[in-house]
Amino acid sequence: MTEKTIIIGVTGGSASGKTSIAQKIFDSFPSENIAMIQQDSYYKDQANLTMDERLAVNYDHPLAFDNDLMIAHLHELAEGRSIQIPVYDYTAYTRSDKTSQQLPTRVIIVEGVLVLEDMRLRNLMDIKIYVDTDDDVRLIRRIKRDMDERGRSLDSIIQQYLTSVKPMHHQFVEPTKRYANIIIPNGVENKVAVDILQTKIESLLAEK
Amino acid sequence: MTEKTIIIGVTGGSASGKTSIAQKIFDSFPSENIAMIQQDSYYKDQANLTMDERLAVNYDHPLAFDNDLMIAHLHELAEGRSIQIPVYDYTAYTRSDKTSQQLPTRVIIVEGVLVLEDMRLRNLMDIKIYVDTDDDVRLIRRIKRDMDERGRSLDSIIQQYLTSVKPMHHQFVEPTKRYANIIIPNGVENKVAVDILQTKIESLLAEK
Repeated sequence: MTEKTIIIGVTGGSASGKTSIAQKIFDSFPSENIAMIQQDSYYKDQANLTMDERLAVNYDHPLAFDNDLMIAHLHELAEGRSIQIPVYDYTAYTRSDKTSQQLPTRVIIVEGVLVLEDMRLRNLMDIKIYVDTDDDVRLIRRIKRDMDERGRSLDSIIQQYLTSVKPMHHQFVEPTKRYANIIIPNGVENKVAVDILQTKIESLLAEK
Repeated sequence: MTEKTIIIGVTGGSASGKTSIAQKIFDSFPSENIAMIQQDSYYKDQANLTMDERLAVNYDHPLAFDNDLMIAHLHELAEGRSIQIPVYDYTAYTRSDKTSQQLPTRVIIVEGVLVLEDMRLRNLMDIKIYVDTDDDVRLIRRIKRDMDERGRSLDSIIQQYLTSVKPMHHQFVEPTKRYANIIIPNGVENKVAVDILQTKIESLLAEK
């Protein structure tokens, strides 16, 4: 690993399709060549908080994430060393005692709702992508997902959306569109954009 | 020429940097492989109008363009035949008697402020790009360009901007962002986006 590691940031609002796009790109290359690091894995360790304190945390706010660790991990990978990615326990609202090993790879996709929000993360990235999907379409997807996969009520989804997801989106996520090199509209439906990014990565991997 | 011709549409507001981006991509390939067709060449022939009538035309409106001819020309190129592109006479506000020959090429860039506005044009395109630059930045560039290159007064530039360029932008240009596969922010400064598009075209040209 003397070649430079290529770091690609993929962000966008909740339910914008950013994870699907990152996943599609990730899946099209052998795992020895590409890694996907998700910001959700780097929710802060909250072992020192009571459960009531954990429930009161705003998980859509930049302070919910341990960017220091994520940045340290990206440096480790770029220097050719493996990392142990934390595995978050969503029922306990803190890190589990498990980790997931990631070997260094030529290309790293860094995916998450606030990966362009931290200047230190942005400065590590070679390509910055913002997946831009209409707010109403994102809300519809979020309602369906939270009802189907998490069995939540419509009222509680809308309540969380209006009090946290939406204001945090406008305050912290949407402004990072300005840092993107490329904006991908209509998220996961956009095969042309995914193909163009796949081609760029193919070309990077073919270099020596 | 049995290979499919690849048509790439590049649009964006006045002074967004769309022409520079299209030109940069065009310049990075040999001219036997790539063509650049500009919508401005297809302003309608107005030989049948008086000069007063010509001056009264709204040149920022879709009806100012002869899309029928442009579409016919793209079909000709795709079928392997040369075309004669009209050469517009900006002082006479109509077509000159000159034309410019264009041979068929594997890749064609179609550039202009309203190339995504006509569904027939969109349907011919394999990749649709919208260059998205802040309105104020576009205005600043337009003022500088029209003062420096065309010797116009600030008042007349602002007058035209407010009465024609801006309303036509909001009515016809900006809505076509929705049809783009890729949105490129910050126009011509955006080297990462240009590089990604160049790589895609390289890859297309290398096929077979």
